Amino acid sequence: MALVGGGGQAFIGRVHAIAATLDYRATLVAGVLASEPERSRQAAVDLGIASDRAYGSYQEMLETETQRPPDERIDFVTIATPNSLHYDMARSALDAGFHVMCEKPLTTEARLADELAARVDDTGRVFAVAYIYSGYPMIRQVRDMVRSGELGEIQAVRVHYIQGGLRRMQPDQTPERAAWKLDPAQTGPSGAMADIGTHAFHLLRFTTDLSPMDVSSHLATYHPVRPLEDYGHAVLRCARGQMATITASQVTHGRLNDITLEIDGSTGSIVWRHDHLDRIVLRRHGQPVQVYENNRRADYLSDGYRASSRLAGGHPEGFFEALANLYRGAFDDMWRCASGEKPASAGDSYPSVTDGCEGVRFVEACIASSRTDGWWQPY
Amino acid sequence: MALVGGGGQAFIGRVHAIAATLDYRATLVAGVLASEPERSRQAAVDLGIASDRAYGSYQEMLETETQRPPDERIDFVTIATPNSLHYDMARSALDAGFHVMCEKPLTTEARLADELAARVDDTGRVFAVAYIYSGYPMIRQVRDMVRSGELGEIQAVRVHYIQGGLRRMQPDQTPERAAWKLDPAQTGPSGAMADIGTHAFHLLRFTTDLSPMDVSSHLATYHPVRPLEDYGHAVLRCARGQMATITASQVTHGRLNDITLEIDGSTGSIVWRHDHLDRIVLRRHGQPVQVYENNRRADYLSDGYRASSRLAGGHPEGFFEALANLYRGAFDDMWRCASGEKPASAGDSYPSVTDGCEGVRFVEACIASSRTDGWWQPY
Amino acid sequence: MALVGGGGQAFIGRVHAIAATLDYRATLVAGVLASEPERSRQAAVDLGIASDRAYGSYQEMLETETQRPPDERIDFVTIATPNSLHYDMARSALDAGFHVMCEKPLTTEARLADELAARVDDTGRVFAVAYIYSGYPMIRQVRDMVRSGELGEIQAVRVHYIQGGLRRMQPDQTPERAAWKLDPAQTGPSGAMADIGTHAFHLLRFTTDLSPMDVSSHLATYHPVRPLEDYGHAVLRCARGQMATITASQVTHGRLNDITLEIDGSTGSIVWRHDHLDRIVLRRHGQPVQVYENNRRADYLSDGYRASSRLAGGHPEGFFEALANLYRGAFDDMWRCASGEKPASAGDSYPSVTDGCEGVRFVEACIASSRTDGWWQPY
Amino acid sequence: MALVGGGGQAFIGRVHAIAATLDYRATLVAGVLASEPERSRQAAVDLGIASDRAYGSYQEMLETETQRPPDERIDFVTIATPNSLHYDMARSALDAGFHVMCEKPLTTEARLADELAARVDDTGRVFAVAYIYSGYPMIRQVRDMVRSGELGEIQAVRVHYIQGGLRRMQPDQTPERAAWKLDPAQTGPSGAMADIGTHAFHLLRFTTDLSPMDVSSHLATYHPVRPLEDYGHAVLRCARGQMATITASQVTHGRLNDITLEIDGSTGSIVWRHDHLDRIVLRRHGQPVQVYENNRRADYLSDGYRASSRLAGGHPEGFFEALANLYRGAFDDMWRCASGEKPASAGDSYPSVTDGCEGVRFVEACIASSRTDGWWQPY
Repeated sequence: MALVGGGGQAFIGRVHAIAATLDYRATLVAGVLASEPERSRQAAVDLGIASDRAYGSYQEMLETETQRPPDERIDFVTIATPNSLHYDMARSALDAGFHVMCEKPLTTEARLADELAARVDDTGRVFAVAYIYSGYPMIRQVRDMVRSGELGEIQAVRVHYIQGGLRRMQPDQTPERAAWKLDPAQTGPSGAMADIGTHAFHLLRFTTDLSPMDVSSHLATYHPVRPLEDYGHAVLRCARGQMATITASQVTHGRLNDITLEIDGSTGSIVWRHDHLDRIVLRRHGQPVQVYENNRRADYLSDGYRASSRLAGGHPEGFFEALANLYRGAFDDMWRCASGEKPASAGDSYPSVTDGCEGVRFVEACIASSRTDGWWQPY
Repeated sequence: MALVGGGGQAFIGRVHAIAATLDYRATLVAGVLASEPERSRQAAVDLGIASDRAYGSYQEMLETETQRPPDERIDFVTIATPNSLHYDMARSALDAGFHVMCEKPLTTEARLADELAARVDDTGRVFAVAYIYSGYPMIRQVRDMVRSGELGEIQAVRVHYIQGGLRRMQPDQTPERAAWKLDPAQTGPSGAMADIGTHAFHLLRFTTDLSPMDVSSHLATYHPVRPLEDYGHAVLRCARGQMATITASQVTHGRLNDITLEIDGSTGSIVWRHDHLDRIVLRRHGQPVQVYENNRRADYLSDGYRASSRLAGGHPEGFFEALANLYRGAFDDMWRCASGEKPASAGDSYPSVTDGCEGVRFVEACIASSRTDGWWQPY
Repeated sequence: MALVGGGGQAFIGRVHAIAATLDYRATLVAGVLASEPERSRQAAVDLGIASDRAYGSYQEMLETETQRPPDERIDFVTIATPNSLHYDMARSALDAGFHVMCEKPLTTEARLADELAARVDDTGRVFAVAYIYSGYPMIRQVRDMVRSGELGEIQAVRVHYIQGGLRRMQPDQTPERAAWKLDPAQTGPSGAMADIGTHAFHLLRFTTDLSPMDVSSHLATYHPVRPLEDYGHAVLRCARGQMATITASQVTHGRLNDITLEIDGSTGSIVWRHDHLDRIVLRRHGQPVQVYENNRRADYLSDGYRASSRLAGGHPEGFFEALANLYRGAFDDMWRCASGEKPASAGDSYPSVTDGCEGVRFVEACIASSRTDGWWQPY
Repeated sequence: MALVGGGGQAFIGRVHAIAATLDYRATLVAGVLASEPERSRQAAVDLGIASDRAYGSYQEMLETETQRPPDERIDFVTIATPNSLHYDMARSALDAGFHVMCEKPLTTEARLADELAARVDDTGRVFAVAYIYSGYPMIRQVRDMVRSGELGEIQAVRVHYIQGGLRRMQPDQTPERAAWKLDPAQTGPSGAMADIGTHAFHLLRFTTDLSPMDVSSHLATYHPVRPLEDYGHAVLRCARGQMATITASQVTHGRLNDITLEIDGSTGSIVWRHDHLDRIVLRRHGQPVQVYENNRRADYLSDGYRASSRLAGGHPEGFFEALANLYRGAFDDMWRCASGEKPASAGDSYPSVTDGCEGVRFVEACIASSRTDGWWQPY
């Protein structure tokens, strides 16, 4: 495994390092941890990477690694950098023959995302996008239940992603660690929608079969430091008349990372909240409410749940394990590739490049709709 | 007090009878409890009303009561009938010189609501609309906090009103009690939005100073028995760029009567849930979350809270007491009228006829917006 | 109905006045609302009682009322005074031929409680003790489920009653309203156990068939104003080896009125919390957790639940309605008496004088056990 | 790092392997994963251990490792075996010069625990006992708040540890993985108290300064497969009159792993629940309830909290990270030892051998008390 990003105080790179190795199926052996070469190398060494594989730039890394003997080179690259760098890095890694785990949003433009998708097709490499929340066992339980028809026909879905972290950033004292998130040159043309709205959109797509046909969105900017929207709302009309609504806020005081997923089916409804990530509430009219808890030995839980839970019932798992589950799926596909098979579980046990493309298109449709007061087609 | 509606298995009329007399400030002395005269009279007698004031129709009641000596006649009429009857009854009661407590939605057309408002102006009578949820002590706490600036400038509000009760109605076996709710001739042109969306809209208006300028709404019908929308969503753009979203569902399996009110201000955010009606959660970035609980002796609670709570801390109050609080406010104004003063607390300690008008206009704007895919002005 | 106690700022008397009349089955016509005659009469008039039945003492009330024609006199007396007065008043009321609703603890000594029980037997009057929490619909649901064997054999029960209200009382500034609670001459020999421990004990007895054989208790006093225990704990060993534990605290900062009832059966367990009074959580190993919510139309809820709920699903009820349910049961028995039948539902739809006796004996056993470090038999 | 135990389906050994290496500060290089040599070696290889360090017995491991060059041998041994094996293994590891992380309860007899403690003193090795729950950041927050006096004087503490897992074991079909837990030869003389009661006791000791002087305990066996107690309750009287109560149940249907810690101080009270491990509720009379959430950047959280949290606010952490925190503390002390210093943080950043001894003594006092109906001194 090679890691790009994650040096200094960067949050998500380090999370990848831990999650990817949690199951003893990968080892971190190379990295480019910061944009400045010297700092990059030092950060890599601090993380236990051998100094000859602590690189100063990703170009250097790809060149050097491809020259190592096949069984001594990295197998995949994890990209955890500001959004604007994803495209170049991912494309280069694919071209160099490596598998890729890339942070979201996949790119800053849908056009570039499509190019990446084409490259994945051409190279046959495994490509995963880090929509981490789809790695929670209970989210997989929801997906399995919807698929097997336990809720009947899905009719309406509500996903609310509410944060308040932007409130900590004051005009003159934004922490360096997060500064890039306020710079459109690095984030792309969207703020809250790209950052968290795409997570909400992916949860909708991952857990249900709804096909959004057009989007009506309204974006707003409330906090002084943000040049882009920090609050957004979207209504999605789907192929068979279903309706989905998505809310993304980064300015709700004191809300840390609250995600609510509510699915209304013709024979049952489900609520999942990030606050209680390993619990879902299933309701059917006239019956007692049913709560599914983290108990991987329980017969009522789906295979998807059990395959992604590591601990005995009642022992809490969290964010690291969710990402580790995406890696698990990607590793299975990498093994398939290694033995000449095709990747088989993209989009299923880990988010695919197509999921990444859809996310970027959703963001673009929201921006267009908000600007014109009209309905736009996401794809 | 005279009650119109509430006979047989009707739900809300009986609630009014209990709530209005809870504080020993009114007595139920007359009534028209059903549409069929004989059934009406019997139901009234069953509720302890003297047989000579157990009327067969509201015309009969108003005529007879006005002929009684002033100090032996009713002071006010509570109207708890299907929506389509509100206008005639309320107008007649006002014209006969009585104060009125009317169920929501005020009327089935905005035009009629405006006429009622004019009549209230002309007659100087007290007129209250039963947006019951605004009677909860903690909702008044929220209103007081917003007014006093404790949340800074209000920027975004989300109100979700989620029910599943419609699921119990099957095409051939709707309970008589609720049958009128499926008949547009009696409900007016809207289903979920008129029934519960107006409650959500009133909570928004009651607790904040947001002035909705235009509405984008999307309505849908998912359950076979409903000729009108049973699911609706609205985005409201307000005068100073604020955004409010309202969701109203009557088809979410197993959800009984869930209301969530979330208010985002520039210096704090608040969440109230009907599920825990006597609790609010106040958050400010970087500080511990604060939970306000039902403790009327606590100094931190507002006068509006304390004035509407009847029990010691930790002793649960509910729906009856909320409605009783609206009556309290209306009774104060009736006393003012009786002593020659003007009503003083309409819109404040009980919802006014203006609040009723706004609710009807909001529903009409939602219908128009959903039909045209455009933005509409509610008023 | 006649009310004794409840004048001025007294809390529970007023609650009785509202609850007893909630269902339109009783009217408050007489009262002795305070210990001082003039204040007593004024308080009664303020509550709408005619001045000739606003009495200065309960002796005066009983004498005068018994001299009124049978169909113009009160039917029952509600006693909501400091504990030390219960015995005399209740005995006098019974002797005068009236039914009685008495606050808990029934008396300050078990000996007196037994005498009252004998008097009830002799007079054939209806006697109810206001263990209000047993009036909640969901508590009756629990009782019905245990009775019908849905939890198998009951093995262990935990009841925790946690308050912090005593913390508000400072040595020199106790509010007059609550001053008697600090005076052993008025409360009897126990503090927290008599005040709230008896509620917990009654919940245990009401919902299960456990027969406590002996008690090991440990009492403590932590707050400076309390001459008696303000914290207590008891372990009860029951007839067939079951174990129950009871905790009563009045010094837990900021806890308002938290009661938790947990019942472990051989085939299922139940949790009820006062915090969510209209909800229980039922668990069986290996199955989804089941939550029963306030939905009186749901088939899965017991007759006992439905008979004691007044509102549609999702509409919150509270403390007033719980007490009104005890009155309902007592009224049914009063009607039985009036038509020559025997009371039939004591102990079932309202707590009986026997329940009251048991509560006092439990308190006495706790005191003895704590003093001697030994096990004591409650009865 | 060497791991003893954890092969096959064993739960906790594998958890140690992940937790110890989570922070990139240790590598698993040797192991004895099962009692049967061949199975042991295979399981070790499956976990990535080189075959020459995949041992068949712990004697073999200790002998072989001590013969390796100092900088190529293991530094510490993690013991995750049935209780009856802890003593021999831990003693041998200490004698061979290795640091030890040992599962709880430390031993099956207090006498053996004391011998281990003496050995730790003699050898100067680092010794940690895996009371994992003390590794949660919010538990450390509680400890820090109590220490700094934020709750005033601690007066009463309640710890309830409620599980239902034993219900899954049926007389003839206990899963092999858990069979040893039903065998007193392997568990020692206590069931629920040793297994989970010791966790509860340690939480009490870790978070407060209460010194239990004597214990009154009542143990019971309700489920047919258990030869030992599966339900237990203990009251502890402490040095300055404080009272603590501990409940341990393994037979409460459907409860997975619920721990509640409630601390009552003279100026504030705290509640922590495992169900929401990264949240505490702080209450002070007359003030809003305060909820501390997982937000390591918040100024109001203690150093102990921040030092043990790895993720940004709102990103859930769990069981692995809690154990990783104990390892962190132990690793710091191992580094101190390596540089000639003394261990400095035992009992503080990880549970010490003394904590382990106290746990065993507590269990012995409970057994004695329950047998004799008397009060016993734990130490």
